[in-house]
Amino acid sequence: MSSNTAKQSKSTYARKTVAFIVYPKIKLLDLSGPLQAFSDAKNLDGKSAYSVVVVSSSGSSVCTDTCVSISSEPAADWFRRRIDTTIIVGGNGVFKAIEDANLLSQVTRLAGRSRRVGSICTGAFILAECGLLNGLRAVTHWDSCERLAVNYPSVTVEPNPIYVQDNNTWSSAGVTAGLDMALAMISEDLGRQAALTLARSLVTYLIRPGSQSQFSEALNVQITDSVGRFFS
Amino acid sequence: MSSNTAKQSKSTYARKTVAFIVYPKIKLLDLSGPLQAFSDAKNLDGKSAYSVVVVSSSGSSVCTDTCVSISSEPAADWFRRRIDTTIIVGGNGVFKAIEDANLLSQVTRLAGRSRRVGSICTGAFILAECGLLNGLRAVTHWDSCERLAVNYPSVTVEPNPIYVQDNNTWSSAGVTAGLDMALAMISEDLGRQAALTLARSLVTYLIRPGSQSQFSEALNVQITDSVGRFFS
Repeated sequence: MSSNTAKQSKSTYARKTVAFIVYPKIKLLDLSGPLQAFSDAKNLDGKSAYSVVVVSSSGSSVCTDTCVSISSEPAADWFRRRIDTTIIVGGNGVFKAIEDANLLSQVTRLAGRSRRVGSICTGAFILAECGLLNGLRAVTHWDSCERLAVNYPSVTVEPNPIYVQDNNTWSSAGVTAGLDMALAMISEDLGRQAALTLARSLVTYLIRPGSQSQFSEALNVQITDSVGRFFS
Repeated sequence: MSSNTAKQSKSTYARKTVAFIVYPKIKLLDLSGPLQAFSDAKNLDGKSAYSVVVVSSSGSSVCTDTCVSISSEPAADWFRRRIDTTIIVGGNGVFKAIEDANLLSQVTRLAGRSRRVGSICTGAFILAECGLLNGLRAVTHWDSCERLAVNYPSVTVEPNPIYVQDNNTWSSAGVTAGLDMALAMISEDLGRQAALTLARSLVTYLIRPGSQSQFSEALNVQITDSVGRFFS
């Protein structure tokens, strides 16, 4: 599917819509890494490859887990519009969010209209609560994997990878891993060269494969290296 | 200085204020990587080590280069308050921002009150326009280093590193490099262990040293590797 998608995108330059679903107390960096990647991604003609939207239940300003609030559009405005990819953001507010029947209904409706669905960090709990991970492999932040597995036994939680793709449902590990998942999705859509050009523009160290451990060897070396080699 | 600061911080747990200065059309990820790092950083007692604020000229909602706008406080509210670190965010709007005399005056005033000053990505142009990089080494996004050097000959532009520290003035390369600079500042303040714990929480691949090239070897391998090894 990925090569067909890439060919279609290259020949028609159809702009895909990516919708991010947010709620109070999301983790700002969970959203902004992938949001920046999709916003900056370009087709071969140098024009934006995606139309990106951030939606919430109310469509009003949404507080994050930092000092800033962000603007959003009402999710209901998108019930009849074309969406390529729906992504659920994580954050400390997720455990209150999964008790919000209205939000869950909106997530189910938007995800049902999408070719591809994804979650970042603890956003996986919302997908799971909606039943959208039933029978699928998925991941979340390393400190929440056990909770996800216990609470949703029909989900096969893989605690190690930084992102997991099971058919058209993707999930990513914590925070910065969301950027890697987004780059992989963009590579699937636009081709590998477009993703690498974008990574270079964002000055990322590398595009991590999904199989990359949440506890990277490079970081483990730094943690066990008492002389502090990460300083220049 | 760094070891003294770390000792002070560990013994008193004084919460330091970090002020981010924004303007229309900042790059969202320039802000949100470092903002998330300082927001999440903890002292040994598990409490927040920093008080973080985002300020703009007007104190109203500020558009970013993505679909979202973010909240901010008026910069003038901080003219008489204690600030530890002032950081100028980059983005496409920077070349209009450097023509805004009011903003430059506010940056100069807030930076003058701060123990430490930093810039992310093209935010270096604002520091340079304010004369705050005169006689110092600095870096910006790789595609803007030549422009910074030509426009501000009193600045010694180092085009390669992902961040540069010259006395109490820091500058970082593009986008994701801002997170590495923030982690290095946090390590200087709170100690290396706190920074590594934070990096693990954010699921970063590693804490990159300032000397890390903007064009990482790892990404270069992926770019020159035609078989697409970044997929799992």
